[in-house]
Amino acid sequence: MDKPKSYCGVFGIYCNDKAAYNTYFGLHALQHRGQEAAGIVTRNINKGNIPVFSMHKNFGLVSEVFNDKLFQEKLTGDAAIGHNRYSTTGSSDSVKNVQPFLVNYRLGHIALAHNGNLTNAGSLRQELVNEGAIFQSSSDSEVILHLIARSRINNQVEQIKEALDKVKGAFSVVLLTDSSLVAARDPHGFKPLCIGKHNNSYIIASETCALDIIKAEYIRDVEPGEIVVIDDETVKTGSIKSFRLTEKPEHHSKCIFEYIYFSRPDSKIFDHNVDKIRRKLGKILAEKHPVRDKDGEKVIVISVPDSSNTCAIGYQNFLEKMGIHSKLEIGLIRSHYIGRTFILPGQLKRELGVRIKFNTVRGVLEGRTIVLVDDSIVRGTTSKQLVNLIKEANPKEIHLRISSSPILFPCYYGMDFPSKEELIANKLNNNIEEIRKYLDVDSVEYMTIDEMLSAMKDQEPTGFCTSCFSGKYPVSIDNSFRKEAYDN
Amino acid sequence: MDKPKSYCGVFGIYCNDKAAYNTYFGLHALQHRGQEAAGIVTRNINKGNIPVFSMHKNFGLVSEVFNDKLFQEKLTGDAAIGHNRYSTTGSSDSVKNVQPFLVNYRLGHIALAHNGNLTNAGSLRQELVNEGAIFQSSSDSEVILHLIARSRINNQVEQIKEALDKVKGAFSVVLLTDSSLVAARDPHGFKPLCIGKHNNSYIIASETCALDIIKAEYIRDVEPGEIVVIDDETVKTGSIKSFRLTEKPEHHSKCIFEYIYFSRPDSKIFDHNVDKIRRKLGKILAEKHPVRDKDGEKVIVISVPDSSNTCAIGYQNFLEKMGIHSKLEIGLIRSHYIGRTFILPGQLKRELGVRIKFNTVRGVLEGRTIVLVDDSIVRGTTSKQLVNLIKEANPKEIHLRISSSPILFPCYYGMDFPSKEELIANKLNNNIEEIRKYLDVDSVEYMTIDEMLSAMKDQEPTGFCTSCFSGKYPVSIDNSFRKEAYDN
Amino acid sequence: MDKPKSYCGVFGIYCNDKAAYNTYFGLHALQHRGQEAAGIVTRNINKGNIPVFSMHKNFGLVSEVFNDKLFQEKLTGDAAIGHNRYSTTGSSDSVKNVQPFLVNYRLGHIALAHNGNLTNAGSLRQELVNEGAIFQSSSDSEVILHLIARSRINNQVEQIKEALDKVKGAFSVVLLTDSSLVAARDPHGFKPLCIGKHNNSYIIASETCALDIIKAEYIRDVEPGEIVVIDDETVKTGSIKSFRLTEKPEHHSKCIFEYIYFSRPDSKIFDHNVDKIRRKLGKILAEKHPVRDKDGEKVIVISVPDSSNTCAIGYQNFLEKMGIHSKLEIGLIRSHYIGRTFILPGQLKRELGVRIKFNTVRGVLEGRTIVLVDDSIVRGTTSKQLVNLIKEANPKEIHLRISSSPILFPCYYGMDFPSKEELIANKLNNNIEEIRKYLDVDSVEYMTIDEMLSAMKDQEPTGFCTSCFSGKYPVSIDNSFRKEAYDN
Amino acid sequence: MDKPKSYCGVFGIYCNDKAAYNTYFGLHALQHRGQEAAGIVTRNINKGNIPVFSMHKNFGLVSEVFNDKLFQEKLTGDAAIGHNRYSTTGSSDSVKNVQPFLVNYRLGHIALAHNGNLTNAGSLRQELVNEGAIFQSSSDSEVILHLIARSRINNQVEQIKEALDKVKGAFSVVLLTDSSLVAARDPHGFKPLCIGKHNNSYIIASETCALDIIKAEYIRDVEPGEIVVIDDETVKTGSIKSFRLTEKPEHHSKCIFEYIYFSRPDSKIFDHNVDKIRRKLGKILAEKHPVRDKDGEKVIVISVPDSSNTCAIGYQNFLEKMGIHSKLEIGLIRSHYIGRTFILPGQLKRELGVRIKFNTVRGVLEGRTIVLVDDSIVRGTTSKQLVNLIKEANPKEIHLRISSSPILFPCYYGMDFPSKEELIANKLNNNIEEIRKYLDVDSVEYMTIDEMLSAMKDQEPTGFCTSCFSGKYPVSIDNSFRKEAYDN
Repeated sequence: MDKPKSYCGVFGIYCNDKAAYNTYFGLHALQHRGQEAAGIVTRNINKGNIPVFSMHKNFGLVSEVFNDKLFQEKLTGDAAIGHNRYSTTGSSDSVKNVQPFLVNYRLGHIALAHNGNLTNAGSLRQELVNEGAIFQSSSDSEVILHLIARSRINNQVEQIKEALDKVKGAFSVVLLTDSSLVAARDPHGFKPLCIGKHNNSYIIASETCALDIIKAEYIRDVEPGEIVVIDDETVKTGSIKSFRLTEKPEHHSKCIFEYIYFSRPDSKIFDHNVDKIRRKLGKILAEKHPVRDKDGEKVIVISVPDSSNTCAIGYQNFLEKMGIHSKLEIGLIRSHYIGRTFILPGQLKRELGVRIKFNTVRGVLEGRTIVLVDDSIVRGTTSKQLVNLIKEANPKEIHLRISSSPILFPCYYGMDFPSKEELIANKLNNNIEEIRKYLDVDSVEYMTIDEMLSAMKDQEPTGFCTSCFSGKYPVSIDNSFRKEAYDN
Repeated sequence: MDKPKSYCGVFGIYCNDKAAYNTYFGLHALQHRGQEAAGIVTRNINKGNIPVFSMHKNFGLVSEVFNDKLFQEKLTGDAAIGHNRYSTTGSSDSVKNVQPFLVNYRLGHIALAHNGNLTNAGSLRQELVNEGAIFQSSSDSEVILHLIARSRINNQVEQIKEALDKVKGAFSVVLLTDSSLVAARDPHGFKPLCIGKHNNSYIIASETCALDIIKAEYIRDVEPGEIVVIDDETVKTGSIKSFRLTEKPEHHSKCIFEYIYFSRPDSKIFDHNVDKIRRKLGKILAEKHPVRDKDGEKVIVISVPDSSNTCAIGYQNFLEKMGIHSKLEIGLIRSHYIGRTFILPGQLKRELGVRIKFNTVRGVLEGRTIVLVDDSIVRGTTSKQLVNLIKEANPKEIHLRISSSPILFPCYYGMDFPSKEELIANKLNNNIEEIRKYLDVDSVEYMTIDEMLSAMKDQEPTGFCTSCFSGKYPVSIDNSFRKEAYDN
Repeated sequence: MDKPKSYCGVFGIYCNDKAAYNTYFGLHALQHRGQEAAGIVTRNINKGNIPVFSMHKNFGLVSEVFNDKLFQEKLTGDAAIGHNRYSTTGSSDSVKNVQPFLVNYRLGHIALAHNGNLTNAGSLRQELVNEGAIFQSSSDSEVILHLIARSRINNQVEQIKEALDKVKGAFSVVLLTDSSLVAARDPHGFKPLCIGKHNNSYIIASETCALDIIKAEYIRDVEPGEIVVIDDETVKTGSIKSFRLTEKPEHHSKCIFEYIYFSRPDSKIFDHNVDKIRRKLGKILAEKHPVRDKDGEKVIVISVPDSSNTCAIGYQNFLEKMGIHSKLEIGLIRSHYIGRTFILPGQLKRELGVRIKFNTVRGVLEGRTIVLVDDSIVRGTTSKQLVNLIKEANPKEIHLRISSSPILFPCYYGMDFPSKEELIANKLNNNIEEIRKYLDVDSVEYMTIDEMLSAMKDQEPTGFCTSCFSGKYPVSIDNSFRKEAYDN
Repeated sequence: MDKPKSYCGVFGIYCNDKAAYNTYFGLHALQHRGQEAAGIVTRNINKGNIPVFSMHKNFGLVSEVFNDKLFQEKLTGDAAIGHNRYSTTGSSDSVKNVQPFLVNYRLGHIALAHNGNLTNAGSLRQELVNEGAIFQSSSDSEVILHLIARSRINNQVEQIKEALDKVKGAFSVVLLTDSSLVAARDPHGFKPLCIGKHNNSYIIASETCALDIIKAEYIRDVEPGEIVVIDDETVKTGSIKSFRLTEKPEHHSKCIFEYIYFSRPDSKIFDHNVDKIRRKLGKILAEKHPVRDKDGEKVIVISVPDSSNTCAIGYQNFLEKMGIHSKLEIGLIRSHYIGRTFILPGQLKRELGVRIKFNTVRGVLEGRTIVLVDDSIVRGTTSKQLVNLIKEANPKEIHLRISSSPILFPCYYGMDFPSKEELIANKLNNNIEEIRKYLDVDSVEYMTIDEMLSAMKDQEPTGFCTSCFSGKYPVSIDNSFRKEAYDN
């Protein structure tokens, strides 16, 4: 699919007799944030009061990586953290880069799961190596653990604060230590992270859908720049300990793409329902860029399932409100049986393309004016193929409406795009008419950055990162991290 | 999921230099008809003009069973057939029961893929065993091959006709021989089967969505009681050979559940668009059983995704037409990451239930009158759990609308239900009020059989099998087939 | 290794509460007879007095194919048969050809394990196919099961006799039925088969080493042309039922290669200790072809481990008896870690050759006159490489002594040689001097057929098959069996 | 088997276009030193003159861990090191403990393979952790890498020297860096390590049998306390660079068990042929503890194959020299098909015991006076079972002769024994008569330590470690290493 890739989802749970099972369910609910690999680390306080840590991680979906035997025999204990990782294209990647990372250091065990991307990992890694550190992975996240291990402070929370004060960029992290579950979010608040509770158990998760699946109640978000600590005292007193990172930026930089595409519509992130914001985007899109049938017939609004469904409803509802006759229809059927291993060799890829994933419902499209609502366009290749597929059903007209702005710049905080040269909007100089011609539709319209921000309900417009649209980067980038070099 | 299980999907292709690849894509498009296992048999006419047959089959999704190496090195040739098999609960099943079956007999090779269920396989098998036949599987379908192998006739098509004249029940079959692709449908026409064409290639498939994926054009259905033969002559002349089975029943008995639930909405089966009939079912359901908000507010119509989506649109559209204010919403989010291996141990199964598969979009449901549209109820357990899940979002009222009649009887022609005792409608004596109480909703309404049949557009109402609703079986049942006994 | 390949080993056990485990140990003891694949079929009389058969078979060593779970959960019951299969070079082979074969036919279950090769399987298979039989494998052994399944007789033992009277060639078979363990040996007695007993359990095995491993006592051989039946009555009365096949040839045709190479030295076969006969071969070889050091020093006798060890002892002992000063030494060390998967790509194969398997003990060989004793030479390639390896240790002279005659003809009764053209003795026209030159040794000597037969102790010389040496075939050959054609 | 376990074998090769293949063959030749796991690291200087390191390691035999694809696609390059690891009983062990270890540190890559056991790894590890080091494994060997990574010196060889000067105990190591192959042996010289050459390639190996397999010529041993460096200059000039570790102990402490049991008889270690010393041990054993038949008949000398074969020859030869009539025979046949996965459940283990591995050749043993020669006894359980097995063949008498002293103490330098309490000699207070009674033989005799040392040819008796016999430890032990604690 022609969409940006998220870097991952994280989950943690404390004081729960089914800690690993619930982490498994939580990761399953967060599966859309990363399908490449998954891992769980558990802490088991044994009879001698000794914390024993166990880990299992591998490539594959959550449901492929874990099995009952693991939960019953290995991943035991009452505290756990887990991590989902997105799918890289490279096959050379190794399981040693799959998180969580677990190490045993001077003050005991520490396990880490990280969502986001550090922007100064390269220089920090070089410094650490110069001091004799031996890195186990080529992941930027490992830097955090070495900073902790080398700290001369004798308090784990203070060590974590010291380490997180040194790293820059985007990080929503969960850490599991011998005595606590720790969660932290970078001062800019790029990536979401929330706190939940179920009976005596405390939960940390990237999105609230991971709380829902285990019946946990949403308490609040981990705030930008906050470190929260959950330990046995928290369980007894009900009080979550909170600490602050040193840096306090003027504005937050919440990733707006979380609302546009990444997060699940049934989640609440950054303290707002994704579903509502996505519907609002659809309404503004309709208001700014409505479509009318030239013969006065009903306009058919269809979405690219499933990510644009909510937005399409908002769009069609607003058309009605504007007095434009329209109908929401299911015009594209999507197959959900395409696993990671689906084969489609070169030549056939070009021939069959999106047919493997989508088919049209012809009766719905034939002879009609179609509004195809999509959340974003990256390369444009899938959109072009979809348009061709729809044309085989002989519609009257096809109008493409995008519920975000043209993507023009790379993201350094945790999204993975193809190279700038491959971005269709950049390639065609952000010329909408050129994009329309390329996609061969009757019209194509995007939203402006301001229109997007106006859909953010009562959230401050200055609180978002829009760098992939605007090129304005809230945190400076240190390009010295060289994953390829560290890989061998 | 609490739905009937289909027995399978079949596919065949002739005169195609990517026969196995295209069969793979066809089976992928038919994956909803069977997720347990898949198989492909290819025929390769080698340099010496000798037909060489190759076979690969295994448990798993189509994308898990096959790989590029297989297509490039083993499944070569210009003709192929394939089969998808549904998921049985028993773990004891063996790959020897996975189709296609391939044998080498007096007149050469023959491979078979069968959708449907034979009703006299038990007595035929006994006869054959008494004559010295050795069966390789415990499948009813193997009987057809032994009947062919034992035939004293010296023409393969006539052998196939002789064999199919002997078997009773439901069969849509594709067969591959040394020189032809043969397809046949039982005289009652229980299961769909269509013919397509792409350039010089001829295709046979359970549903037209398998033609669409490889860009083939729909030609026509294989008629009930028809045997079609596609061979090199067909390719040259464009003429498909057609033969008739001997039996000519007064009425056809097309499986109405294919329209209600099994087939994909983008398919045309029994010569009609599934999507249109499913929407029609929704409209009649709305007409007969509308829902109004007690406070005059908008009624929220939601579906159980994805199978009831089209029906819910039809329902909401008709409410509007009746002047009832309503809105179609996405109230349930379904996870598509649940593979065959998802773990949910006993106790957690009861606790978490449908949460693993569904989550609510709370903002959409809270304080509203909800119409939940579903296509059918089998045991009722999933419906009850879904209702409970929705209640957590605090709706005003919940009304359940089912686009079919109460399921009261077993199917002997190719659907798999739980035992009669587990069917909720049968258990509660088809008492709608009892079902309502059990599900704990404000109202529940089904369609009558006649209402369902009235949605079948211009198709004759007598042309359908409704035995799972009515108990009227169009073909008599011979219960002597004992899969368990044959299994060891 | 440059040795003939045996076709397999068979084992059966009746009335034993660890039937499958003991079959596993028996097959392990017979592993030298076949390392490609292994299988076990068990019979479990369940509570309802119904015989339930279970089967597991796969490619690999016995220890790789089976595991504890299989024995505890699947291969239960008090009777079992098993089979070891030798390693074919072709990779195309399929598990469906792995024995035992198990079928369910008119009179119940029957499982079969067969050692040997049928010489009229081709024509019998053609007849059966013409009558409508569907074969599951490309193995000659399956013919026996179809003959049984088609028999109109209503007594299983008589059916088995009828079937075995029809097949020609070499067969030592064990069969398991609903009520008995049956074993039979062809009238010529090509392959060994013995009967053992341990407490109440009866055992059938290819060699007595399979009795020893489970502490069973050797009772007697199954006689050539005999069918023995062991059932519940046998267990009660201690009486093994015995029947005779119809054919009674003038002479037996015991495979002399069983003594020369195939059987384990700790086994008794054809009622004689293999170890004793092998030592006798060594003594006769020394008597006929002694070696003396040209300088009157001690001659060093070494064997090609492990198959020639016993023979080398016999040889050296007789040299001493003849007054020739000699010493038995371990001059070659053999690695036992070479599994089926050992990699040795083309070029390196030529370079490294036997080094992968053997290394010399230089101190033993340097400056000495070496007698290298081997049991047989097939292609001569390994022998040549071994000679070169030994030369690197700078011996004074190398004399090769072979404890059998030159192999000149193919075997049709169950041994697998390379093609006649590849047999070194045939290639070089049975010219010993040419063979010596090719191997580049100081002398090479074989035994004559009569010398070999004279080592057979008190057994009649006419009782052996020597066809691979003499070309005299005791049973005529029907070459119409076409494994390759049946394979697809 | 009831034998001590070796800690491993190491191999390295420089300047060879088939470096990984040759390492594979070398490890195969050293397979007897460790069957649990294997690994290879290669260095490939790519076109840009950048050294790229690749690694593959896993549990299993060398032939199971590697495959052709790995050698062709991944393990490319002209320098490589490899490691074999012995079989631990614990199943909890993880692949991260399998060697070689490969890290990327300040001065580039470094890979390590280590044979032996460090005696101060516990305290060194604690120090390093206190300074912030993060360990990847629970292996003592990893300490060496951290010492190197932390060194402030800017020359790799000097860093290695600095690190190896800090560690105590037994180490024969090979290291691969960006520009050289380095090998070193601890100042006491516990474990063997030799240098070989083949054309332009230089080879390092634990034993010379690993040189033989790839046709390399033995040059000399790496000396105790020596570091040798092989780099591109060495290839050009033929000069191996040599450095000295600082410590220079008065005596060497070569492991005498290498001669008794560990090393292959075809190897030269510590500059002497293993085969010769093993034969000498047999001769002295015969001289000190001859056996005579009470009726003046020939005494039958048999070995426990294969490790005692050479010793048994020495024993029998000396009996003859002493005028005692005797004969060397193969009385025990050993199966070589027992892989790591052989199943033998509890009860059957007791019943069948050594039968799974050994069978007697009855004709050889019946009525005879048997001398059973074995190299060592650890627990005594296998010996007892072997004696029982031999008794079933009805010998006249059984005399056990052991070619080493009673094992009474643990080894801390790289051998793995069961706990002191399980050692039969220790358990029975080193009382030979008690051991005889326990084993139920007619006599049992060991060698004294001095007798063993007198077999060491021209090597100084003070040059050996005999601590497992004498309790005299040449290097002091720091017991603070806690593998279990590091494992989680």
